[in-house]
Order: sequence, then structure tokens, then C-alpha cells
Amino acid sequence: MMTLSEKINSAIRTIPNFPKEGIQYKDISTLFLRPDIIQEIIDASANALKEHRVEVIAGIESRGFLLGAAIAAKMQLPFVMIRKAGKLPAETYKATYDLEYGSATIEMHIDAIRQGSRVAIIDDVLATGGTALAASELIKRAGAYPIVSSFIAELAFLNGAKKLEDIGIQCLSLVKYQ
Amino acid sequence: MMTLSEKINSAIRTIPNFPKEGIQYKDISTLFLRPDIIQEIIDASANALKEHRVEVIAGIESRGFLLGAAIAAKMQLPFVMIRKAGKLPAETYKATYDLEYGSATIEMHIDAIRQGSRVAIIDDVLATGGTALAASELIKRAGAYPIVSSFIAELAFLNGAKKLEDIGIQCLSLVKYQ
Repeated sequence: MMTLSEKINSAIRTIPNFPKEGIQYKDISTLFLRPDIIQEIIDASANALKEHRVEVIAGIESRGFLLGAAIAAKMQLPFVMIRKAGKLPAETYKATYDLEYGSATIEMHIDAIRQGSRVAIIDDVLATGGTALAASELIKRAGAYPIVSSFIAELAFLNGAKKLEDIGIQCLSLVKYQ
Repeated sequence: MMTLSEKINSAIRTIPNFPKEGIQYKDISTLFLRPDIIQEIIDASANALKEHRVEVIAGIESRGFLLGAAIAAKMQLPFVMIRKAGKLPAETYKATYDLEYGSATIEMHIDAIRQGSRVAIIDDVLATGGTALAASELIKRAGAYPIVSSFIAELAFLNGAKKLEDIGIQCLSLVKYQ
């Protein structure tokens, strides 16, 4: 019998040289064609986040919306969208983070999270951790606590988990690529 | 007792003049803070799509990912991502549609949908129908059948539903704005 990690690993495909030469891109689109595995991921993630007494799920646009909203529905918790700059219509907090070339900005509505809430950050793949760190800043600016982050897969060689754990955010990932 | 439509209507907020002067933007971010209503939407959508004997759920990036993946998990169906140009790593079909100024392109992996499948298109808000029509082209190019589209809300005065129904795609929406 396969473990959940093995099932996920078998359903994710690796696309060489995307988005550019030398990068082995982990394509989760094929995983979402497998509802049996997705359901198991939702259940496992909900159970893990329940142990952390999470009160709010924050999903990072756009692939963090896939499992984020489904996990929030399963746990019956509010789902907060963290979106790319310029997409949210009301007043927002903004956080900018570095990319390899240039930078990117993400935003969250200032009234999306109740002060003092325990928040989980959801995304598909943890790479350098830059986006998740920026998301944690937004959550703190709202007076809430980013306590845990949950990913389908982690590119462990980029050491993103350490950056998050150094500021007290626990990292959960179902598959690790070394 | 409020109907589901009334509940949704009370949880969506209208932001005037976003993204530009004169537009009354329907902000669904506040709806996703209400897990009770979201769960009811997922259940109602899954029941409606089941009647259409849907076999695949296709969600349009990025807000179509929110309910799309959750409905697919609930129905235990494959979830296919329809993404903005340049995001999908493997070979894709592409469809371009007109915007008020300029145009936009969406893509779908060529191996994402089994030929002959009955497919539902999921997005958050139906406006002019341009994006959903482009999505239906992608599904047809894959040899599958876009038979139904499902939205939280419909801007009925833009007549998007008629465009979809004219090519045989039934439109479901839980709230209509006149």
C-alpha cells in the first residue's frame, strides 16, 4: 500500500527547463486530476491544522486557492485571499518580496482577519519561502498570528522551511524534494 | 429563513468604481469568510452538476480555483486548471478573447481532459462571458464537451448567459444582478 506522500509523488510530474533552462518544474496540475489523492490531502491537512488550533485559512493566489478554499470548507473556517497587487478592491495591506530578478507585491484586505486569530498560510509548493514570508507579514499587520504554513510539496534544497521556522511559523509539507 | 441566494447576496459586498470609475465591483472575498455559506454553495453546486452527469470540473484562474477544486473534491471528479498564458508548463491549447481594451489568452494542458468527457466550467462571476467562451473552446479542442457552466453570481445585464446558451452550454448562477 502506498503512503500519501508516495501517491502525491507519483501524481506530480516534473517538467524540465520550465519556466527557464535548468529548472525542474514540479507540475501539480496532474495531481488535481486525481480526486482520490486530493481528498486524502484535504483530510490530512485539515487534521494537521486542527492540531494547531487554526482559526483562519489564508491562501496565496493562485494555486494556494485550490487546496486553501477546500481545506477551509472542510474545517468550516473563514478563507482569506492573499492576492497579487491590484486585484483586491477594498483597502489592503501590501508586502513586497524579492524575486530572482525584480520583486513582487501581494495584498490582503485590512478587514479580512479578526485581530488575534491563529492563521494557517496555504500554498502549493514551498520554494525559497519568499511569498510565504510576505504573507506572514500581511497577517501580522492585521494583528493576527501566522502560526503554521502548509504545502503539498517542498523544494527542501532551497531552505524555505528554515526561514519560516526562524520566525516561529511551523512548516508542513506532504512531499519533500531534496 | 434566508434562501441561499439571499445569504450569498448579503455576504458579497459592492465596491464602487473598481477597477475603474463607474464599475460596481462585486467583491466575493467577504463571501469566503463565511464557511457556512461556502459549504452550502459547494453542496448545491455539486448537486446541480451531478444532474448534468458532469465528469470533469474545469476551473478558470484564479477565482474559479476557489470553488472549482472544492466542488471537484466533493464530487470526486478530476479538476482541470485553465490558466493565464505562460503559467502551464507542458504543451497547451490556447484561446484568446477580447477585453474592453486589448485581449487576453488562457491555456489548458492538451492531456488534461479525456476525449468525450462531459465538462463543467467554474468561475466566480459571469460578466460578458468572454472568458467562459474561451474556456469552452479549449475544452472542445481537447475533444470533450463543455455542457454546463457554474458561477456564484451573474451580471445579468451583460448578457453573458445568452452567449453561452447559444452554443449549448447551460448557465447556472446562484445570484443574478440586474
